[in-house]
Amino acid sequence: MLKIKNYSQNSLARTGYIDLNGTIVQTPVFMPVGTRGAIKALSLEDIKEIGYKLILANTYHLYLKPGVEILESFHGLKNFMSYKDALLTDSGGFQIFSLSGLFQFMDSGVKFQSHIDGSKHEFTPEKVLNIQKTIGSDIAMVLDDCPPYGADKERLAASLKRTHQWAKKSIEYGKKELSNQKIFGIVQGGTDIDLRKNSLAFLQDLPFDGIALGGLSVGEPRELYAKVLKEIGPFLDSKRPRYLMGVGTVPDILEGVKNGIDMFDCVLPTRNARNGQVFSSKGKINLKNEQHKYSEIPIDPKCDCKVCKNYSLGYLRHLHTVGELLGYTLSTYHNLYFYFRFMQDMRLAIENSSFHEFYNEWMSIYGPV
Amino acid sequence: MLKIKNYSQNSLARTGYIDLNGTIVQTPVFMPVGTRGAIKALSLEDIKEIGYKLILANTYHLYLKPGVEILESFHGLKNFMSYKDALLTDSGGFQIFSLSGLFQFMDSGVKFQSHIDGSKHEFTPEKVLNIQKTIGSDIAMVLDDCPPYGADKERLAASLKRTHQWAKKSIEYGKKELSNQKIFGIVQGGTDIDLRKNSLAFLQDLPFDGIALGGLSVGEPRELYAKVLKEIGPFLDSKRPRYLMGVGTVPDILEGVKNGIDMFDCVLPTRNARNGQVFSSKGKINLKNEQHKYSEIPIDPKCDCKVCKNYSLGYLRHLHTVGELLGYTLSTYHNLYFYFRFMQDMRLAIENSSFHEFYNEWMSIYGPV
Repeated sequence: MLKIKNYSQNSLARTGYIDLNGTIVQTPVFMPVGTRGAIKALSLEDIKEIGYKLILANTYHLYLKPGVEILESFHGLKNFMSYKDALLTDSGGFQIFSLSGLFQFMDSGVKFQSHIDGSKHEFTPEKVLNIQKTIGSDIAMVLDDCPPYGADKERLAASLKRTHQWAKKSIEYGKKELSNQKIFGIVQGGTDIDLRKNSLAFLQDLPFDGIALGGLSVGEPRELYAKVLKEIGPFLDSKRPRYLMGVGTVPDILEGVKNGIDMFDCVLPTRNARNGQVFSSKGKINLKNEQHKYSEIPIDPKCDCKVCKNYSLGYLRHLHTVGELLGYTLSTYHNLYFYFRFMQDMRLAIENSSFHEFYNEWMSIYGPV
Repeated sequence: MLKIKNYSQNSLARTGYIDLNGTIVQTPVFMPVGTRGAIKALSLEDIKEIGYKLILANTYHLYLKPGVEILESFHGLKNFMSYKDALLTDSGGFQIFSLSGLFQFMDSGVKFQSHIDGSKHEFTPEKVLNIQKTIGSDIAMVLDDCPPYGADKERLAASLKRTHQWAKKSIEYGKKELSNQKIFGIVQGGTDIDLRKNSLAFLQDLPFDGIALGGLSVGEPRELYAKVLKEIGPFLDSKRPRYLMGVGTVPDILEGVKNGIDMFDCVLPTRNARNGQVFSSKGKINLKNEQHKYSEIPIDPKCDCKVCKNYSLGYLRHLHTVGELLGYTLSTYHNLYFYFRFMQDMRLAIENSSFHEFYNEWMSIYGPV
């Protein structure tokens, strides 16, 4: 599944590619999030034009709407949304714990209420894989218990035990029932290094196609985030793709890649775009800012995306000020273009043995002060 | 400005083209509405791809936001929004009377309060042309007094007097101060045929580049709408473009063209798209309808737009149900494509001497029952 092309000299950063049923994805890769079967404010034409070949969709949301029956009738989400490249689906676990008002653990899984209408549902490791089978993703994630940042040792230990039991059930069920779908296990353990190492060792003993880190970038201080990555990085199996879930910001991705991560996803570039925050080679820009009123320059004069080629900060500010949908679309396009180029340049830097400089340069612009 | 190509045999329908500073626009033409300097939910790339070369923007909205100073600094709206083809601006009159909470006539014009923040403003015939000069449209409209449907004879007569006084001031001011901008006069008179004829005669005596009919399709019964057009049509100057403002539906456009109208604009295809109503060769479709849940067919199997080529009713229904912006974009694209093709087919029908059949066919699908 994963072929490594190149290793960085002074870090664990590496480039390679993943073959997903014929779709070749260069790594390290950032995946845009298409929560409900659409990248918010963008068309697939745009996604393709930018260059993305791997996107993420959320099992929890799709299970609630449009629901499994419709996805089954359409022979999967790709057909439903008219998408031809690669797809990763999460397990729904994270959304149950963060979105759903109420949830309750059972031996076999977790009961929860829909955040939309309060209706009652149940997810088990087998059921979420089965839903992902119906969705027809190329990469399916196992159900895990993702405790919030700040959970005590007892809660973390219980989470780990549960996550590991579910992981074992998942890989057994998945290897039997799923075909043409890779299955990734998810490491938990909060910011407790011992628990993280324990969890990693347990999961890497199972025949997962890839290893994901969950429960990071969930509110912990940046030093703890970096520490976990630094301590765990050297123990990550080099032959399998490593996926850091829900990450993230420019510095968080840099930190991840430095410690050997291959895959990322986050709503940040799309969500922030809709709120008027865009990214440039000089840092973040708030499009709603008064100072851009008369500005005829683009978001980033160094960017060659169609938004920067055609539209001024002044016009984009106007669109955001009055709430025109076009403002959301153009900003989202630019941000996803920025992320795509950022990852592309990073891969190049790794291959040119200049990842260290690349890391420092971007940290100086976007890093924590 | 206007060259007539062809006349229909059994009606006043005609085809031709308008030259707007080098942009050639085939008539009869439908203009999409870009109220605040953007076609809602669509990019200019899409507009261009569909084939539109003449769009409308609203003086009232642009005057309030982004405001004249910004538009001036950008050397006009076309530069501001990065648009290269032709632009028509209305005068703002209609919005003052329909959107603004409070307004008050003066001898010189009208005072009104912004519908956004209640701030006080004043429009005069000269001022609205001057704003449109700053906007830099190819066609500017004069300030008129547009009374609501149901206004009594006294109000209608006062409106007409005012509209005519303003028209005279407008053409005098416009011919002196505006260059590269065509100026259209606006006929009022409600559904009173005598007043309409009087207004038309008055306006056509002035050297306007085009003649518009205002105050129609503002709530009057369809028979009255058709009656006004039928009575007025034969008196419209054949050498000037005729523009029916704020129209409209498929049957209303058919009725207009039948009576010699060349130009139309309406928010209907864009607004209805965002509400989930799309048009097809078989009639209107409500995308939110349960019946489309499992439907794998496009909006219109006969339509060759990219939405119909790629997306199913089931998927579009899902997008509208969950409120994904992509749903608004795809539906708007389809509806504007539908309107573009409808007008294109209508021009062809006029040129092939089959307008009568065309009219009857579309009336049988979309007509009043």
